[in-house]
Amino acid sequence: MTAGLALHTDKYQINMMYAHWINGSHHTKAVFEAYFRKLPFGNGYAVFAGLERIVNYIEGLHFTEEDIFYLSKQEEKYDKAFLDELRRFRFGGSIHAMKEGALVFPNEPLITVEGTIFETQLVETAILNFMNFQTLIATKASRIRQVAGNDILLEFGTRRAQEADAAVWGARAAYLAGFHATSNMLAGEKFGIPTKGTHAHSWVQTFRSEQEAFDIFAKVMPDQVTLLVDTYDTLGSGVPHAIMTAKKLEAQGKRMNAIRLDSGDLAYLSIQARKMLDDAGLHYVQIVASNDLDEGTILDLKAQGARIDTWGVGTQLITAADQPALGGVYKLVEREVDGVMVPTIKISGNPEKVSTPGKKDVYRIVSKGSGKAIADYISFPEEKMPPENGKLKLFNPLHPYMRKNVRDFDAVPLLAPIYDNGELVYELPTLEEIRAYHNSQLNQFWPEYLRKLNPEIYRVNLSEAVWEMKQKLIAEYMEEHQEENHDD
Amino acid sequence: MTAGLALHTDKYQINMMYAHWINGSHHTKAVFEAYFRKLPFGNGYAVFAGLERIVNYIEGLHFTEEDIFYLSKQEEKYDKAFLDELRRFRFGGSIHAMKEGALVFPNEPLITVEGTIFETQLVETAILNFMNFQTLIATKASRIRQVAGNDILLEFGTRRAQEADAAVWGARAAYLAGFHATSNMLAGEKFGIPTKGTHAHSWVQTFRSEQEAFDIFAKVMPDQVTLLVDTYDTLGSGVPHAIMTAKKLEAQGKRMNAIRLDSGDLAYLSIQARKMLDDAGLHYVQIVASNDLDEGTILDLKAQGARIDTWGVGTQLITAADQPALGGVYKLVEREVDGVMVPTIKISGNPEKVSTPGKKDVYRIVSKGSGKAIADYISFPEEKMPPENGKLKLFNPLHPYMRKNVRDFDAVPLLAPIYDNGELVYELPTLEEIRAYHNSQLNQFWPEYLRKLNPEIYRVNLSEAVWEMKQKLIAEYMEEHQEENHDD
Repeated sequence: MTAGLALHTDKYQINMMYAHWINGSHHTKAVFEAYFRKLPFGNGYAVFAGLERIVNYIEGLHFTEEDIFYLSKQEEKYDKAFLDELRRFRFGGSIHAMKEGALVFPNEPLITVEGTIFETQLVETAILNFMNFQTLIATKASRIRQVAGNDILLEFGTRRAQEADAAVWGARAAYLAGFHATSNMLAGEKFGIPTKGTHAHSWVQTFRSEQEAFDIFAKVMPDQVTLLVDTYDTLGSGVPHAIMTAKKLEAQGKRMNAIRLDSGDLAYLSIQARKMLDDAGLHYVQIVASNDLDEGTILDLKAQGARIDTWGVGTQLITAADQPALGGVYKLVEREVDGVMVPTIKISGNPEKVSTPGKKDVYRIVSKGSGKAIADYISFPEEKMPPENGKLKLFNPLHPYMRKNVRDFDAVPLLAPIYDNGELVYELPTLEEIRAYHNSQLNQFWPEYLRKLNPEIYRVNLSEAVWEMKQKLIAEYMEEHQEENHDD
Repeated sequence: MTAGLALHTDKYQINMMYAHWINGSHHTKAVFEAYFRKLPFGNGYAVFAGLERIVNYIEGLHFTEEDIFYLSKQEEKYDKAFLDELRRFRFGGSIHAMKEGALVFPNEPLITVEGTIFETQLVETAILNFMNFQTLIATKASRIRQVAGNDILLEFGTRRAQEADAAVWGARAAYLAGFHATSNMLAGEKFGIPTKGTHAHSWVQTFRSEQEAFDIFAKVMPDQVTLLVDTYDTLGSGVPHAIMTAKKLEAQGKRMNAIRLDSGDLAYLSIQARKMLDDAGLHYVQIVASNDLDEGTILDLKAQGARIDTWGVGTQLITAADQPALGGVYKLVEREVDGVMVPTIKISGNPEKVSTPGKKDVYRIVSKGSGKAIADYISFPEEKMPPENGKLKLFNPLHPYMRKNVRDFDAVPLLAPIYDNGELVYELPTLEEIRAYHNSQLNQFWPEYLRKLNPEIYRVNLSEAVWEMKQKLIAEYMEEHQEENHDD
């Protein structure tokens, strides 16, 4: 999956690279930042993910001879020397990024890419594609985790995923944000995620009776038996037959694992099935439920007293059905002018879309007393953090009159160095380490920020220097632009 | 992308294969049908797609040594002889499928898979994954095509797609259903889809002025110039600068292609920009618009008199944002009992979810007079089509009293043979042929079935034999089940 992705990019990247090359500006330095402006699902945070995929992509990034041949046939009639430049292309820039599993927020840089305009432009599309998808699914999974308490969560979405990569990388994103296993065997093989699976309705249909189907399945996997009980009639046939099978297993000193409900009123059916199992002395047999579940239905089912131990979550998670895209963007924040790096801004009629100029660091300001996060803080690399007087002024960039001073805090840098001038300088953590890191990140936040509905808004603050630079560039642009209008 | 997908399946498929293998029933024959129950987006039809991907998958389907090693470490402790069976595995079954680009409807088989229970079970997950995604995106694209008239449609969604496969195969699905080009270069390389791209805001930001940025871009690609005019101020700066560049091109005897609008009120901006271009004598410069477009916004913009020639459609198409999954299912319809194939049924408390037993054919009943489709008709292979008396009785399977007789029709078989006992017997059409076929399919339907909002419902009818078989199996099940309850 890492080879042959050089052309997984938008044509305009190639065209801009070509135009810079013709113009002789392709070695000009640039800094881009990837971030999103709005949290998905009305959640209070997002879970950063996709970095390992991005590293795999950068490691394998080169144009094959087929790619070059394909490019040579385009209507743009790219110069042969440009194609030779692409033939030699390797990523030689620097990347900083959030760690996978981190809680992240709107308008803070999640990934910064520094290098020549040539290389920083090429990688935009794939970086956004990978970051947007995995961050979206990890966030959805973390939301589901918040309502599921200590229940087991299984990712079951492959057949409804948006193609194979989405199934496999989506399973990874779900696992790192707290799911326990996936049904996708390829994700299990690639990432070491535990895999789970029982049987389908078709298993039952291929036998003369449901009882025969259950008994044979139990004989084959006596230590792994979960029986799907809704092929014909859950309470009238499935559960009684499953109880019969469980009793036969008991006679051999074995214990059935669970039954699975996949249709109907899961609250009612699980309560009734629990009672039938308990009445039969099968307190240890658990109940797995699936069928278009998400954080909303799980919360509702729990409120109705559903007796479900394990949740199989499919379509709603793997497609992030209520908001199937994270709107991550990649914006130029600094460019080289006469050998000097200069901050740059993208103006917009919509004030929230005006970009924040300059290459920036992000710190999490954590109270030494409570150990909890107070706010994120964005500053320039040349600003000393924490400040020498130990005092930090936080103010709301959209409403600067809202401010407070903070003392006794740790300023934890969030952006880790990943590439240094083309060299990978980051040791990718294991998936278990990422899971643990995500958990520790959750513990750093007060519950108000984590709740599913109407969470408290966590603040992302700009340093005064960053804020002033932004105001200055806006003012300069306005002045220039008024002059221009005046000239008309 | 075709190698190494044997484990792109749910674990329960492997577990059922194992249980059948242990039970000695893995060579039992089975027939499965893939279909969906509900049309997406409230559309009147779906566009079948994904077959080429499925053929690629089947052609490359085998377990690698890594796959076998991975399986040997599972908690199920699969028998070594079973793993050897997997090592030798090749798909030896038969597949029939709709042709890509076909208009298809709920509850008719889109793909039938016949073979041993072993092989038919393994391929379920991947077939559904591929069919569900491409059919979904092709349907969305065809919907957008319906409202766009003769305008040009560009697929621009890669950065928001659900990972790389979704971007690439999604671009293919969009193209086969009537889009004209994609921005994704990998999709262009793999499938020969035309690619289009201009420049981003960052191109403008890397120069001292917008005018300089436009002029340089125009100099590099004088025959392909589309200028993005909203980096700073569309009407105040972008369009006047673009006009200046166009005039400079004119002086060289060149014609600028287009300007692109990517934010703001696209109706107002396009009307004003059109006027400014026309006033400057640049009637030939076209207007491209992008920014979260879909069939709803395009229709609205057209109703407001927007002057847009080309639509760049991103997120909403590539994720099918208003319904990001097609609920395609794969159900057992026949199984071998004592060497004879026997129809089988899946009962459900929800009557619409009761499956239709038996291996079936699908015909499109087309009026000889009008050349238009009247209904689809599902029958058993042993039924003669068309019937000898030339008369077909159509009735609504949910409301059998609604019936009519049809004469003077062609019965066009829709399911093509793809695999015959493991051998590929289908010549995959080119993408251009698929596009043309989709167009011819649209021409076969009255406009009432094709409209975006509240389309007329196209009827899918069962033959009397199929309907009677279904009633018989339901009755048999009910009888058996009542006896069972009586025994309790």
